[in-house]
Amino acid sequence: MNLTPDPGHVRLALHGGAGDPPPDADGRAQREALRAIAVQAHALLVAGGSALDAVTLAVERLEECPLFNAGVGAVLNRDGRPELDAAVMDGRVRACGAVAGLARVKSPVRLARAILERTPHVFFAGAGAEALARELGLEMVEPDHFITDARRRQLAQARKAGAITLDHDHESAGDRPRDDDAAFGTVGAVARDARGHLAAATSTGGLTNKLPGRVGDSAVIGAGTFADDHSCAVSCTGTGEAFIRAGFGLAVHARLSWCGWDLDRACAEALHAVRRYGGRGGCIAVDRDGQLALPFNARSMYRAWVGADGRVHTASRPQDAD
Amino acid sequence: MNLTPDPGHVRLALHGGAGDPPPDADGRAQREALRAIAVQAHALLVAGGSALDAVTLAVERLEECPLFNAGVGAVLNRDGRPELDAAVMDGRVRACGAVAGLARVKSPVRLARAILERTPHVFFAGAGAEALARELGLEMVEPDHFITDARRRQLAQARKAGAITLDHDHESAGDRPRDDDAAFGTVGAVARDARGHLAAATSTGGLTNKLPGRVGDSAVIGAGTFADDHSCAVSCTGTGEAFIRAGFGLAVHARLSWCGWDLDRACAEALHAVRRYGGRGGCIAVDRDGQLALPFNARSMYRAWVGADGRVHTASRPQDAD
Repeated sequence: MNLTPDPGHVRLALHGGAGDPPPDADGRAQREALRAIAVQAHALLVAGGSALDAVTLAVERLEECPLFNAGVGAVLNRDGRPELDAAVMDGRVRACGAVAGLARVKSPVRLARAILERTPHVFFAGAGAEALARELGLEMVEPDHFITDARRRQLAQARKAGAITLDHDHESAGDRPRDDDAAFGTVGAVARDARGHLAAATSTGGLTNKLPGRVGDSAVIGAGTFADDHSCAVSCTGTGEAFIRAGFGLAVHARLSWCGWDLDRACAEALHAVRRYGGRGGCIAVDRDGQLALPFNARSMYRAWVGADGRVHTASRPQDAD
Repeated sequence: MNLTPDPGHVRLALHGGAGDPPPDADGRAQREALRAIAVQAHALLVAGGSALDAVTLAVERLEECPLFNAGVGAVLNRDGRPELDAAVMDGRVRACGAVAGLARVKSPVRLARAILERTPHVFFAGAGAEALARELGLEMVEPDHFITDARRRQLAQARKAGAITLDHDHESAGDRPRDDDAAFGTVGAVARDARGHLAAATSTGGLTNKLPGRVGDSAVIGAGTFADDHSCAVSCTGTGEAFIRAGFGLAVHARLSWCGWDLDRACAEALHAVRRYGGRGGCIAVDRDGQLALPFNARSMYRAWVGADGRVHTASRPQDAD
């Protein structure tokens, strides 16, 4: 990459999770929130800001919005606590940062970014990750900061239904994990900046009623989050276990880099693998030539994007873009 | 796969870490330990045991051996505590289990295996992972169980040298992480069983003097641990951050599956990428046809293997096999 800087190279896509919302949910509020955040991140890119800054900003804003399953409004684990995962990756040299199991760091994606820039490591989990956040001077909050009444109700329902519980009798591994519509809502962003550099970021509260300590694909570099200037930037949402088994981001990268496939075909194949491993969801992706792909195999995926026309579009169902 | 069962299909490789041991270290004790464990895992395979059982058994025995950086004898983090990571993957359907940040679970690889078989999730970290281990009835120990005098001395030396400390001034990401010879010692196993199924397992204490909460590549499915019957099984050792950025296991898989490359070439390319991302180390790998590859770019890698001749070999330097 390293093109001559040109706002015409700029591309952006955001997601606010994929799933099967009730038929009466029109997703208008989510789309408006995605639009406002896309406008802000797009302005940063057009002004010459980096793809890395744009995806970090977009995901931080999505974390602050209670409509999505990340940061404020994240789903709750079996113990009624939020446990937040996030990752960010810079396509220039594949520098990356990832975090898992946070309850006290205000912006998980900002901690991932700080790990990328200020430590010799790439991945931190649990209490050590929170201690690092304090040491790096990031803003800390109480776990209650993230909890909304809607998520408390959702957890109560999930507990009643027994969804995502341990299954001691289940020895065969082929059909795991269970499909759970409450699983969705992860947020993410991918961008291509005016110089042609790529970046991706993802942040999530994971699965409602998940076992404490469970880590999904968002924090797994190469699965739910991946970026390389030579190929593409990808951020996923859905049943994390299946995205990890599919090695989603790296599979798309390999098809582009080594097989000459286009982005649509590569994402479709990876999503097919997710289905084979018992999962559902979607992804947002941008390739080095500026092509966008936003496929999903659930009924809807909240999404916003800016393609070659330079305009912000949003959609939730397969065909309802504006 | 699913060949007609035949002990002739059996292949096995173990590693006990790669690095630059002092010139006077002959590695005899490590090689003898690897040999004894390889004999045991090979016998299991010849008797018709599964690749998944063989790699789990081998890694559990390596965790018990104080000569390696996994389980008993694991290196210590900045706070003087062990923090253990492990993963296991079944090539049949890519079922997998991974754990990070353990200090009280006697066998991290056994917990990874239990996650694979008995939960709907694939990855657990920190306190939640230890609570899960208790819930699943796994054997628990005090952190002191893992700590040896040699590791205490190593930590004191690393602290004195300031290795693997936070570098607040370091904003450029291209040359991270720092190379640290004390980093090496991770253990792993790959196997092909009499039916042609593949599996991989890895277990590690990570980096001496690492920041608490740091997770390396061993627990990242698709990076340090990967298995798919259609291609290969891989277990890595070395500077974990660089193996994560390289997406080591999935890169080898993609080259075999989609480019028709042989295992040697695919592993060499992935190891070249590791070097590009500032890291060193090695891997053990077996492909679906029974080819073995055990490359490394450090001065030595403790290893044992059983190829088509059905005999157990061991080596540490590039050319000292017996």
